[in-house]
Amino acid sequence: MDYSFSEQTKHFKSSAVRDILSVIQQGNVISFAGGLPSDDFFPIEAVQSAYEKVFASGRSSLQYGLTEGFTPLREAIQTVMTKKGITSTVEKTLLTTGSQQVIDLFSRIMLAEGDVVLTEDPTYLAALQVFRSYGAKVIAVKGDENGMDPHDLEEKMRVYQPKFVYIVPTFSNPEAKIWSTERRQKLVELCYQYHVLTLEDDPYGELNFTNDTFEPIASFDEKGSHILYTSTFSKTVVPGLRTGWVTGPDEVIAMMSQAKQMTDLHSSSIDQQALFYIMRDFDLQSHIETLRKEYYIRMTIMRDFLNKLDRGLFKWKEPKGGMFMWIEGDEKLDATSLLGEAVKNGVAYVPGTPFYVNEPKLNTFRLNFSHSTPDNIKLGMDRLVSVLTRQVTV
Amino acid sequence: MDYSFSEQTKHFKSSAVRDILSVIQQGNVISFAGGLPSDDFFPIEAVQSAYEKVFASGRSSLQYGLTEGFTPLREAIQTVMTKKGITSTVEKTLLTTGSQQVIDLFSRIMLAEGDVVLTEDPTYLAALQVFRSYGAKVIAVKGDENGMDPHDLEEKMRVYQPKFVYIVPTFSNPEAKIWSTERRQKLVELCYQYHVLTLEDDPYGELNFTNDTFEPIASFDEKGSHILYTSTFSKTVVPGLRTGWVTGPDEVIAMMSQAKQMTDLHSSSIDQQALFYIMRDFDLQSHIETLRKEYYIRMTIMRDFLNKLDRGLFKWKEPKGGMFMWIEGDEKLDATSLLGEAVKNGVAYVPGTPFYVNEPKLNTFRLNFSHSTPDNIKLGMDRLVSVLTRQVTV
Repeated sequence: MDYSFSEQTKHFKSSAVRDILSVIQQGNVISFAGGLPSDDFFPIEAVQSAYEKVFASGRSSLQYGLTEGFTPLREAIQTVMTKKGITSTVEKTLLTTGSQQVIDLFSRIMLAEGDVVLTEDPTYLAALQVFRSYGAKVIAVKGDENGMDPHDLEEKMRVYQPKFVYIVPTFSNPEAKIWSTERRQKLVELCYQYHVLTLEDDPYGELNFTNDTFEPIASFDEKGSHILYTSTFSKTVVPGLRTGWVTGPDEVIAMMSQAKQMTDLHSSSIDQQALFYIMRDFDLQSHIETLRKEYYIRMTIMRDFLNKLDRGLFKWKEPKGGMFMWIEGDEKLDATSLLGEAVKNGVAYVPGTPFYVNEPKLNTFRLNFSHSTPDNIKLGMDRLVSVLTRQVTV
Repeated sequence: MDYSFSEQTKHFKSSAVRDILSVIQQGNVISFAGGLPSDDFFPIEAVQSAYEKVFASGRSSLQYGLTEGFTPLREAIQTVMTKKGITSTVEKTLLTTGSQQVIDLFSRIMLAEGDVVLTEDPTYLAALQVFRSYGAKVIAVKGDENGMDPHDLEEKMRVYQPKFVYIVPTFSNPEAKIWSTERRQKLVELCYQYHVLTLEDDPYGELNFTNDTFEPIASFDEKGSHILYTSTFSKTVVPGLRTGWVTGPDEVIAMMSQAKQMTDLHSSSIDQQALFYIMRDFDLQSHIETLRKEYYIRMTIMRDFLNKLDRGLFKWKEPKGGMFMWIEGDEKLDATSLLGEAVKNGVAYVPGTPFYVNEPKLNTFRLNFSHSTPDNIKLGMDRLVSVLTRQVTV
């Protein structure tokens, strides 16, 4: 039967990363492909103890909850926001099924066929999929290592009147880029001037290897009117809880809550209650320090292997945080066609192509250093460096 | 600032039930408004023990999972489906954040502005909100106590070429209606003939007060090509887990999975793993027997109070299952304007109006008998019968 799906489904694309993941889970392949945090540091005792507290609080903890989420957790998040310099309130805060749902709900209330979203290029591929699924036109703003170019951004705000700007300004996915303070401030000014909203996606901000502070763009939005800030507990606590949040202008959050009510009534209230106890009773800050230290070690191991490659042929930068390294190979490298060869040799990565808005650079790829153990990073990178070196010398 | 939300948001409406709930939670009001199961029977020990098993299985249980959901739970659901006579497979089964998300994802892949959905009238109001949020036109099919009228259904399939039919055929919300076997079979035949899909929403099927079996409509779809069946653990285990599922044609489920991947990557995998252990180790069947018995007792208490009303002025039927009673008062009754008076007297219900597709019957309202304790049902119904009697005699 022809199921005559809606027009919207023509924009659907399965995630290339997920497709690769499903293949490589079957073999003896060391994968640097997924954007997974390390299982090794999951604070399972703290998580278990938090759930015990949920059940000890009685049967009503298992009942339906509010669409906006468990209020005490929304309150606890205010402390985090204040520390980051973001002015928020419980009413301006919505809990979601991961920050992926924030991207979807915000798109749902903002976008219709033909609307424009401005992004970096390359950028988070699952965000691109969402924007396009609503029929939006994604336009890339030119940029450099300090963020979007303000002149091009202004020009594109003026010409395209975008519905919003989407950015990952701190340890970005895939490039591990950090926006400069100047560019952050300038973005807010331009948002005010051209009446454009920005969704600041910050899943990696806490995974900071430096002593520098990178203030969220939302902290420069003193009116609290134009920047939505979203983050998640997936990278700092555990992904299986699927809990993210967004904070932003009341009117926008209220509309997103209405959309969420239709979408799924509310996210798991048991998980949200457990997270509240984790935030109350567990030293999350020192846990994050551990993650920073350990992920830094993993990154340096990966870096040392990459140093074996010819720097004339492979360009990359040491990341200052996050979970990814982004490599641009020689012009002749086709990272997608080389993936088969890599997998045959027991190692996987994600080709850069799906992250691009415009013409993709076929010679780019992304490596994740957070998920694999140091030993597996050594093993996998040894394999990868061999494959890359052979490729280049062919 | 004018946030220029998308056109779609013009169709958004907050749920009247939820708005009432948020008001009455503040007072000493006994509420028969919400569609809540009873906290009293939540199997909290079984739930707690299941989470302990999740954590005992190790850190990897807290990692990201598959969009389709935790495979062993999808396998366990096959046993339930087989018992109901529904031919399904793991691949045809998607886990969601409650069955509300099934309604949303299915609408998302099927509906565009102007598309037609056929429903009963009245029907589940949060489904109507979803369909309309996608710009669909909802057309009501005429019906009686046995389900949709087959002639009107056929006529409307022919004339409107709907994208799908949406029904709650067993202990429906709000009317507690049960479709006859004949009507169930006829619907499948018409779906085949006119190439129309049906979404069968069955949250209440297990809450059966009789010894009769009501076979799901999906069990008559021998081709497995036209009927999607959705249910949830919210009414049989606990709502806070937010776990529902849908089973249907491979191609449709695959498309819904793609939509889900964009929406939230996946629902809580910790909750899904806990549910797997509950299904494996807990006697869910005998727990459901308890719910049947206890909800039946609560319903009879409510019924006995309704029997005090003038049967010439108030029409209602004793439900054979589910969680609701549906009452049609005298023509002069305006259930919406009377609600304020009821709340002042310490009792709440949901006016029937938002459940209607066409012209609402203002004199209807819905009572939930599952959530309140027997004592509170007595207290609340005493108040309600007074308010209703006074109203009628004014």
